Amino acid sequence: MTTIRAAAAVPTANHLLAEFRRVRAATEMLCVGLEPEDLTIQPMDAASPLKWHLAHTTWFFETFLLLPRSAGYQPFDPVYAFLFNSYYHTVGPQHPRARRGALSRPTVREILAYRQCVDEAVVALFLAQGDAATGDLAHILTVGLNHEQQHQELMLTDLKHLFALNPLQPAYRSEPTTAATTGPPPSGWHDHPGGLVAIGHAGEDFAWDNEGPRHRVYLEPFALARKPVTCGEYLEFMADGGYEQPLLWFSDGWDTARAGGWSSPLYWQRVDGVWHQYTLAGPRAVVPDEPICHVSFYEAHAYARWRGARLASEAEWETIAAGRPVTGNFVESGRFQPAPAGSEDVAQMFGDTWEWTASPYIAYPGYAPPVGALGEYNAKFMCNQMVLRGGSCATPAGHVRATYRNFFGPATRWQFSGIRLARGGAAA
Amino acid sequence: MTTIRAAAAVPTANHLLAEFRRVRAATEMLCVGLEPEDLTIQPMDAASPLKWHLAHTTWFFETFLLLPRSAGYQPFDPVYAFLFNSYYHTVGPQHPRARRGALSRPTVREILAYRQCVDEAVVALFLAQGDAATGDLAHILTVGLNHEQQHQELMLTDLKHLFALNPLQPAYRSEPTTAATTGPPPSGWHDHPGGLVAIGHAGEDFAWDNEGPRHRVYLEPFALARKPVTCGEYLEFMADGGYEQPLLWFSDGWDTARAGGWSSPLYWQRVDGVWHQYTLAGPRAVVPDEPICHVSFYEAHAYARWRGARLASEAEWETIAAGRPVTGNFVESGRFQPAPAGSEDVAQMFGDTWEWTASPYIAYPGYAPPVGALGEYNAKFMCNQMVLRGGSCATPAGHVRATYRNFFGPATRWQFSGIRLARGGAAA
Amino acid sequence: MTTIRAAAAVPTANHLLAEFRRVRAATEMLCVGLEPEDLTIQPMDAASPLKWHLAHTTWFFETFLLLPRSAGYQPFDPVYAFLFNSYYHTVGPQHPRARRGALSRPTVREILAYRQCVDEAVVALFLAQGDAATGDLAHILTVGLNHEQQHQELMLTDLKHLFALNPLQPAYRSEPTTAATTGPPPSGWHDHPGGLVAIGHAGEDFAWDNEGPRHRVYLEPFALARKPVTCGEYLEFMADGGYEQPLLWFSDGWDTARAGGWSSPLYWQRVDGVWHQYTLAGPRAVVPDEPICHVSFYEAHAYARWRGARLASEAEWETIAAGRPVTGNFVESGRFQPAPAGSEDVAQMFGDTWEWTASPYIAYPGYAPPVGALGEYNAKFMCNQMVLRGGSCATPAGHVRATYRNFFGPATRWQFSGIRLARGGAAA
Amino acid sequence: MTTIRAAAAVPTANHLLAEFRRVRAATEMLCVGLEPEDLTIQPMDAASPLKWHLAHTTWFFETFLLLPRSAGYQPFDPVYAFLFNSYYHTVGPQHPRARRGALSRPTVREILAYRQCVDEAVVALFLAQGDAATGDLAHILTVGLNHEQQHQELMLTDLKHLFALNPLQPAYRSEPTTAATTGPPPSGWHDHPGGLVAIGHAGEDFAWDNEGPRHRVYLEPFALARKPVTCGEYLEFMADGGYEQPLLWFSDGWDTARAGGWSSPLYWQRVDGVWHQYTLAGPRAVVPDEPICHVSFYEAHAYARWRGARLASEAEWETIAAGRPVTGNFVESGRFQPAPAGSEDVAQMFGDTWEWTASPYIAYPGYAPPVGALGEYNAKFMCNQMVLRGGSCATPAGHVRATYRNFFGPATRWQFSGIRLARGGAAA
Repeated sequence: MTTIRAAAAVPTANHLLAEFRRVRAATEMLCVGLEPEDLTIQPMDAASPLKWHLAHTTWFFETFLLLPRSAGYQPFDPVYAFLFNSYYHTVGPQHPRARRGALSRPTVREILAYRQCVDEAVVALFLAQGDAATGDLAHILTVGLNHEQQHQELMLTDLKHLFALNPLQPAYRSEPTTAATTGPPPSGWHDHPGGLVAIGHAGEDFAWDNEGPRHRVYLEPFALARKPVTCGEYLEFMADGGYEQPLLWFSDGWDTARAGGWSSPLYWQRVDGVWHQYTLAGPRAVVPDEPICHVSFYEAHAYARWRGARLASEAEWETIAAGRPVTGNFVESGRFQPAPAGSEDVAQMFGDTWEWTASPYIAYPGYAPPVGALGEYNAKFMCNQMVLRGGSCATPAGHVRATYRNFFGPATRWQFSGIRLARGGAAA
Repeated sequence: MTTIRAAAAVPTANHLLAEFRRVRAATEMLCVGLEPEDLTIQPMDAASPLKWHLAHTTWFFETFLLLPRSAGYQPFDPVYAFLFNSYYHTVGPQHPRARRGALSRPTVREILAYRQCVDEAVVALFLAQGDAATGDLAHILTVGLNHEQQHQELMLTDLKHLFALNPLQPAYRSEPTTAATTGPPPSGWHDHPGGLVAIGHAGEDFAWDNEGPRHRVYLEPFALARKPVTCGEYLEFMADGGYEQPLLWFSDGWDTARAGGWSSPLYWQRVDGVWHQYTLAGPRAVVPDEPICHVSFYEAHAYARWRGARLASEAEWETIAAGRPVTGNFVESGRFQPAPAGSEDVAQMFGDTWEWTASPYIAYPGYAPPVGALGEYNAKFMCNQMVLRGGSCATPAGHVRATYRNFFGPATRWQFSGIRLARGGAAA
Repeated sequence: MTTIRAAAAVPTANHLLAEFRRVRAATEMLCVGLEPEDLTIQPMDAASPLKWHLAHTTWFFETFLLLPRSAGYQPFDPVYAFLFNSYYHTVGPQHPRARRGALSRPTVREILAYRQCVDEAVVALFLAQGDAATGDLAHILTVGLNHEQQHQELMLTDLKHLFALNPLQPAYRSEPTTAATTGPPPSGWHDHPGGLVAIGHAGEDFAWDNEGPRHRVYLEPFALARKPVTCGEYLEFMADGGYEQPLLWFSDGWDTARAGGWSSPLYWQRVDGVWHQYTLAGPRAVVPDEPICHVSFYEAHAYARWRGARLASEAEWETIAAGRPVTGNFVESGRFQPAPAGSEDVAQMFGDTWEWTASPYIAYPGYAPPVGALGEYNAKFMCNQMVLRGGSCATPAGHVRATYRNFFGPATRWQFSGIRLARGGAAA
Repeated sequence: MTTIRAAAAVPTANHLLAEFRRVRAATEMLCVGLEPEDLTIQPMDAASPLKWHLAHTTWFFETFLLLPRSAGYQPFDPVYAFLFNSYYHTVGPQHPRARRGALSRPTVREILAYRQCVDEAVVALFLAQGDAATGDLAHILTVGLNHEQQHQELMLTDLKHLFALNPLQPAYRSEPTTAATTGPPPSGWHDHPGGLVAIGHAGEDFAWDNEGPRHRVYLEPFALARKPVTCGEYLEFMADGGYEQPLLWFSDGWDTARAGGWSSPLYWQRVDGVWHQYTLAGPRAVVPDEPICHVSFYEAHAYARWRGARLASEAEWETIAAGRPVTGNFVESGRFQPAPAGSEDVAQMFGDTWEWTASPYIAYPGYAPPVGALGEYNAKFMCNQMVLRGGSCATPAGHVRATYRNFFGPATRWQFSGIRLARGGAAA
């Protein structure tokens, strides 16, 4: 992760603490209306109990900020270092991921006490240091807050998985009324002439280490779809037997879809001949104008091939996204569901759904993992995953940017992951 | 299950309701001091969340008593019929057993409301019928209460599994002081001359269908140990390499022990050279005089063979147990752990630990499963399981008797299952 | 295993060697017409390649007879002690069972050379000892020959599994014409008054250790079917939805049948609306009068329950079988398939198909495993298996008797295992 | 796959047939000295029996050349279309890959007859058409021959796996004496200034579809090691605990290595303190100067990171390889094992071992899968695999070239896969 150097807009300690309080509170706000039972269960190996997220994000500040930097700080409970370490071998052994849901203790109440204790110690540390805290300490704090925002999104996707699999199909929050769109959504393609472009993060704002270094990439001429694929369009693929045609699919994708019995996106089911989907507001009919989500990379690829198109490379995606305002349907909308596109020239690059790209998640040229325990964050996953871009309706506003690289395995479906087509240039 | 016929000691409706209230309350009392989180998690496929036990025992009364017999009764929630049916194909489809822990809803609070609603309807039904309720209705109620007592025991063994696997090793209840024993425990063998004996239930008191019919069995002369195997004796087996000698084990047992990495009973671990065990009062050192428990049938057999003895057949066990008072260390002691033997002639036949027998669980001669949904209870498990006898420290007093047949697969270890040796007569 | 004591009919060394040559040759005769490829493949974990059987039966004589008793005998290849040890921990470590099919070497030719070398050494040993060889040596030889006969049967069942799963459905041997039956087959039941009976082997003829000691068993009055269940009768069970009614099945059986997609006996498939079965003469239509085979214990139990009957206990079966001539359709008929019943009073007790009993395979009262490596043969499997009686069309004539106990797990279907009903007395 | 257009060097029908006979004979020559048993077994799911390779390569010509193009050709056996179709959904259903080793029939002899029959029909087809056969027919033939050469390499790697896992450790062929090297091997790095380069196949010679289109890539300055990593160098990594340091590994690689118990390359074992490896000439001590092989991508990456270097991207590799003579230690050397490097400037780019690159196997810009069944060959695997370059000691000479892209999953170890380091430029 790039070091934040001195610059005109140095954040003051007060500013940092305000951000700290804001992000930490936002995490807890996600739990309003949930019961302890809802926070306790691990719905599948790849997901975590919500109370684990509450504790792990706290462990992060305790481990990387308080223990090394706050003289005299004593761990809240020494066993937590084992229970809430996700996968940092540098820091020590870990409770097995698939057993995160086997822990009834600590309870939610105890974990909230843990949060409060760590919060107070962090605030005390920064108040004690004053603006001296704005160098390296500030960097660790900022990393911790961005890390916590990632877990905020996971809390929603993990909760959605838990609720969707429950035959009672409970609702999390009611869905707000969607504002009327201002005009017809865009259609067709946005062209780019190709050539030598630069992608990746540079500069002094925060970015993850995996977003840099900025480097040159040669692109053939290409075009990017002006809006993501909608549910209505995806239903055409389904109706045309898209899930039954092996030649549309990658070999691994076909096997995965067969083994899993896939015949629609995750959380969809047909009720009396009408396709419904579970949303965080409960189950309801599929809305054709909404962007498709909860599809895997395999489905995204098969859909694209069926349309005679392809997915964009991450360089293509970033080239079109760069310079556009990072606005859209983020978690703050309270919708927790993608919304129909507005009338922008190129719609919904940010928010609504993460967009699968055709790019495997690997290191950029010149990349080296940061030194130290925090360096164990992104680099070791640079294998067997695909890049997604743009954030979703579960992402906190301000968390993503044009250079942001999310990554998941190609079979992943429980994230708010969708599709945007490309054509020309890169491989179809 | 045998039909309760009219007899001298007909229970009155009032008596039945008192028993109903007592058993139902006892179930809920087990939850005192536990958190919603503790009641929600399924620690392994073979166990269930405690809140599932709370709901399933209630579903039993709703399904077999209220819905068919209480005119106008409406199900509390129609989905519960699916969620809380354990395995009654007669009644309908079931939520998969291994997914019982994937349900955060209904919450504990909602399930307690379900209990209260069903309890009130049962009471109203019996009050309305008065002593007319003492025939068939009384039988169903009695079955339901015995069924609920079985789940009371499972609640404790499932909770123990949950807590024991948690690195925090939380305690459930503190251990009461053990009363001083009145004399040295018995040792050696209790002889029996063999011959044609009768075993199995007969008469009008409640018993499970699988306890009958009473029938004759021919026994060779044999002897039964006067007390169960203790932890101290079992430590000798361990010290002699009992877990490393394949010839002591059944072939399946050896493979199971190897695959599971077994080198001691479940819940044991060595700390600084001293064997400790997790108890419901928390972890503590193994006490040599306590009966061994949390061993599988495989371990019980290997231990017996190592001692040059064998396990008793269930007919042998019952022949010795018949006529003795059904007293001992049951759940009401609040100890939740086997206690050292007293000075009886033949000690601890009832309570403390279930005793593995050498008998596979099969039907008695002349047995036929009861007709109707309640008949789906015991008969379909008469394959691949071994009989255990006598009840344990987690069994409610009054629930067991000399003819009572418990059964589990031979690899089972999370029950309070122990060992009593036999010799002579049946196979060594 | 019982020791053969001196008696009137002491076998001479010459007689023993004649029997040795006869049995060893019979094993190799089974391979006539097969290709090296047929002898090499392991069709499933529970089966073995035929060449493994050829070698393992030879290893048995080398290990238990030649190495301890023949001065100066050198192992044919020291690695064979590892490769061809089935499961004798006493003797040493073993090549994993599931990897028996991963060995292209030794080749069939090399294994036949191994057989010849061991055969010659055995003959030389006996010729050198003369009639001095008729004591303990004779016992080991006899055990080895009975062991080899068991593997002869397995060679046929394993080969059948291999060929049946091959889409080419190759035939092993053509089916001989069945002799016309002499009259209508028996029907109905053979009654027995019950009472105290004795079962198990006694005397000086060879029998396996698990057949003794002879002991008393009390039987209620019962009746045994005069002939095994036929394919035609089983088709009625299938037509009535027997595979779709959970209440007919043991719980484990139902789960096994669901998981395996069972809707008919093994090796059956419907072709143009007609049920066909693969036989060792190739696929052909099911013949209604033939006894059903290739059913599991689970299916046998479900069928019996559907008929309102039950399976016999092994004591009941043996009581009826005792004293009847041990004749029938054995392997020497060259049919390799059960044949329609003749007109005996009680038909087909021996040969045709092994008959599942309701008895779990456990030790008889007073049984103790023989001392020494040969004692590791039967005792360690006395758990999780069911007893089958009577031999099959793949059993060598002379190998079985009324006291003979075969055993397999309840899900086993690749043996020639069938059904005979009982009623009254023991559990329905 | 690119269409071969008319050009100066049009191959004549005679030339094609000579090549056909040469390649087909080379396949069969690989079987000299092997027994039918060796050709029958499937040592693991990812590998195939050698006789399957013999048949599948023949099925390829039958399916894609004879059936559509040779009037009146009748399939040798209609079931073979099912048995020997690898994964062409376009052509029809397939015998499951993991069951290829469950087929004793057709025998080796029958498959050789199949080969002869198809060979004769192909020759007849080409002779009948004369030079008219040099267009599209020639293209299919050429694809089939290149396909067969790929299977020749797999036959050796699959056989090596079979023999290496056999405790008898049989040898395939004795190892020829290695010619003395002409001078010290190169050391250090070969620098490249980076910039815009072109990679991928163009032109009229045969190449696989996945090698094109030729396209531009921007490279940062980088350096490539002048020779592959040797066993001696890899032993340093092992001695330094490379297999015990999680931070060197990708997360998936670490988990895979732990689960598989990896502590050395495949086929290595320590005997009396000395590392040995199984080679196709039998087991022998590891030779420090030989290139390391039988390592996975995960190990290659961990090794590179331990050295402070990285793997090359495929564009970097190809840029250095382009224009160099495609000579080296190929299968024709009869060595079947990598040899110590000679004294070239950049040694062993071709032959000896495939070299793992850092590049996931994805489509090149502008790539579209060929139309028709043959188009199902490469494109559907463009997910979850890594690119390897350069060929190995098991690759036929003339089969590879600078643009050739091989691909396997990152955990693959049974191919002759090795490591060449890079530094600078692309990600470390």
